Amino acid sequence: MTRVIALAGASLIALATAAHAGDPPKLPTAAQSDPIANKVMQGFPPPPDKIVRFGNGTSGKFPGTRWAFSHIRELVPTASVWRGEGAVSVLPRAMRDIDKIAVTTMDGKAITFGDMPALTYADGLLVLHKGKVIYEKYFGAGDAHKPHIAFSVTKSFVGTLAAVLAAQGKLDPDAQIVKYVPELKDSAYGDATVREVMDMTIGVKYSENYSDPKAEVFDYARAGGMVPQPPGYSGPKNFYDFLVKLQKEGEHGKVFAYKTSNAEVLAWIVKRASGKSLADLLSTEIWQKLGTEEDAYFMVDSIGTESGGGGLNTTLRDLARFGEMIRNKGKFNGRQVIPEAAAAEVAKGGDKAKFAHAAYKTLPGWSYHDMWWHTDNENGAFAARGIYGQSIYIDPKAEMVIVRYASHPYAANAANDPVTLPSYYALAKELMKK
Amino acid sequence: MTRVIALAGASLIALATAAHAGDPPKLPTAAQSDPIANKVMQGFPPPPDKIVRFGNGTSGKFPGTRWAFSHIRELVPTASVWRGEGAVSVLPRAMRDIDKIAVTTMDGKAITFGDMPALTYADGLLVLHKGKVIYEKYFGAGDAHKPHIAFSVTKSFVGTLAAVLAAQGKLDPDAQIVKYVPELKDSAYGDATVREVMDMTIGVKYSENYSDPKAEVFDYARAGGMVPQPPGYSGPKNFYDFLVKLQKEGEHGKVFAYKTSNAEVLAWIVKRASGKSLADLLSTEIWQKLGTEEDAYFMVDSIGTESGGGGLNTTLRDLARFGEMIRNKGKFNGRQVIPEAAAAEVAKGGDKAKFAHAAYKTLPGWSYHDMWWHTDNENGAFAARGIYGQSIYIDPKAEMVIVRYASHPYAANAANDPVTLPSYYALAKELMKK
Repeated sequence: MTRVIALAGASLIALATAAHAGDPPKLPTAAQSDPIANKVMQGFPPPPDKIVRFGNGTSGKFPGTRWAFSHIRELVPTASVWRGEGAVSVLPRAMRDIDKIAVTTMDGKAITFGDMPALTYADGLLVLHKGKVIYEKYFGAGDAHKPHIAFSVTKSFVGTLAAVLAAQGKLDPDAQIVKYVPELKDSAYGDATVREVMDMTIGVKYSENYSDPKAEVFDYARAGGMVPQPPGYSGPKNFYDFLVKLQKEGEHGKVFAYKTSNAEVLAWIVKRASGKSLADLLSTEIWQKLGTEEDAYFMVDSIGTESGGGGLNTTLRDLARFGEMIRNKGKFNGRQVIPEAAAAEVAKGGDKAKFAHAAYKTLPGWSYHDMWWHTDNENGAFAARGIYGQSIYIDPKAEMVIVRYASHPYAANAANDPVTLPSYYALAKELMKK
Repeated sequence: MTRVIALAGASLIALATAAHAGDPPKLPTAAQSDPIANKVMQGFPPPPDKIVRFGNGTSGKFPGTRWAFSHIRELVPTASVWRGEGAVSVLPRAMRDIDKIAVTTMDGKAITFGDMPALTYADGLLVLHKGKVIYEKYFGAGDAHKPHIAFSVTKSFVGTLAAVLAAQGKLDPDAQIVKYVPELKDSAYGDATVREVMDMTIGVKYSENYSDPKAEVFDYARAGGMVPQPPGYSGPKNFYDFLVKLQKEGEHGKVFAYKTSNAEVLAWIVKRASGKSLADLLSTEIWQKLGTEEDAYFMVDSIGTESGGGGLNTTLRDLARFGEMIRNKGKFNGRQVIPEAAAAEVAKGGDKAKFAHAAYKTLPGWSYHDMWWHTDNENGAFAARGIYGQSIYIDPKAEMVIVRYASHPYAANAANDPVTLPSYYALAKELMKK
């Protein structure tokens, strides 16, 4: 859900197919595309060939993305998620060398955990074990203090906020969506429930297929100002106007189908149920209570609406605090940040049979619930996942939280999962030995 | 220097003429235009007539400005001025009632200090006396934690940074500008010195006359993305491209002439001399050391260049910390924030004869130096001043710092000064009694 979509564009499937760990990528490597080494956006002004900007699409096109994903606010309007006035919560450190851990990729290649970041264009990687930072590295334009775009990891924040409101009795997941957003009456969402959007089992004519230039995902991105609107553009100019026009296709509640429009609808519901903007709700319910280090921020559309589908930007450390809070049943920083019931709900997993319909090769036996991805493996691990390699990976049994920001050239799961997921599994196994 | 300029536009002089304190304004009062009371930008989505956005100009047009000036980052791209990891410096409080202090406006009207904020559409007003907060109030969309646009108060920050670099031996005010920015060789600035831009005694064909639609100030604002670029716009799309084209008119060093282009040129010099962006330089030299409460931010052009002429946004409290540091010869928060020599330089005032040429009716006997405005009164008071009523007013003898953010409908000095300056003078007099 990004300005990058447009550029990944038509040839994406072909690219993604070639992007297995075993094949040397045709595009520059992480080192070759490093924006700092390449002096991208350095100088006053930078040389013309080193300038990344939004209007001409360079901020959405690899390798411009390698700089842009750490500088979104310099490219588009944004809304602040205020961290509040409280003290920063300490993230205790117990660094250890995990780079040598052996990993076998899904393609059967032998690598190490330390190979993974560069192979998958990571901008930063941080691991918590039993609440302590055991690993923290930044790459490319990644920076401990600069928020990075989370892309669809955003959806898991929206799902969590919905679970919080449900636990507080302010939102009924079993209610019809139109109870909160009557404007959706004549849309695909007119006869669906809140639960169905939360679990993405909505029958809506909306294609997330990046290889089809006519896919609705591009209409969505243009409406939200996430990709440039072409000259003479006359389509919807905000998320609301886009959503009310979506039409039904198929049935609700039957199968899982990943569609970003569902996250935006849930964001709308959450705002109506709470009376707060997404930025304010995230600030008051979570960000202020976590003792975050930095304000987070959302990309916004032309009327200031936050993108609940992919617009959140945070630092990696604050993402880790959030993940650790979820792992700890809603507790962090000496307090119950979100209700325990809400944390239990997002951790519990969804319907595997419905999920199987999506036929993700890299996610066998997984499920989806409250906008979180569940491995349903023996450790009960679950994750927030964002395009181009963003993730929060929570492994309750290994007492491990991995957070990761990246700027992979390819948008597909197949570009990251074959390398990252086995690395996560291997690290969990190693940590459980001790 | 703002998106608002375009709207103040053609009839500004006429409006400003009518805007003396004594005349009831034709436009809505501060209370009538209060964006909170009027539910501006409230609701999901807000009703169409309550939406303020950048693209259609409503964010630059009164009363949209009353909301927009506290929400700039939600409207345009911005660059963060990081506050760092340090603790927030305490602003001790010793509140007292100063609202009843009698004030006689320049037009001879009897008002009180407490009448001043509403008469001049203040969004926030904070007074420090001997380093303690004695008054702090917010109005309209003003908020203690939300940065507000400082407009030309920004220039005084750039002037201060230049003074800092001079004190550090990194910038020579007597040098030719082209020593730092050779690109300006064929422009008006090709034969001028750094000192001449710092004191705005540059002979350049650049009109700051908001009542003339052909004035270069509009070209400047369009180039920097501070006002919408019309369809088919083919002019410069960043500050650099705009500046190199400015041509000489008159002589340098002779008379004071307030032109925002000079501040942008100084910003360019400062970046070249320091090797840092304006946002990073302000962060490392000042913002991190002050113990500010919040990150500040700059509006940026299409290639990410901060506006040094008017793009800074800060909270009022952080603006107060900065002003108090300047008053204390560069010391604040238990440390020497900027070199004492730099603080002394910005405090010392400029050439009154050169200033007199500008013939500001509300500023008799004043001068201009290092991008600060000097009353040259018996208290040695000096100020940073921004369009629509922004200011930092430092009175060394009264040990007083007044900071103020506002969203006055009129762009002219005549709209604010006749009420605000006598209020500042009266308060200083009162405080000196104790």
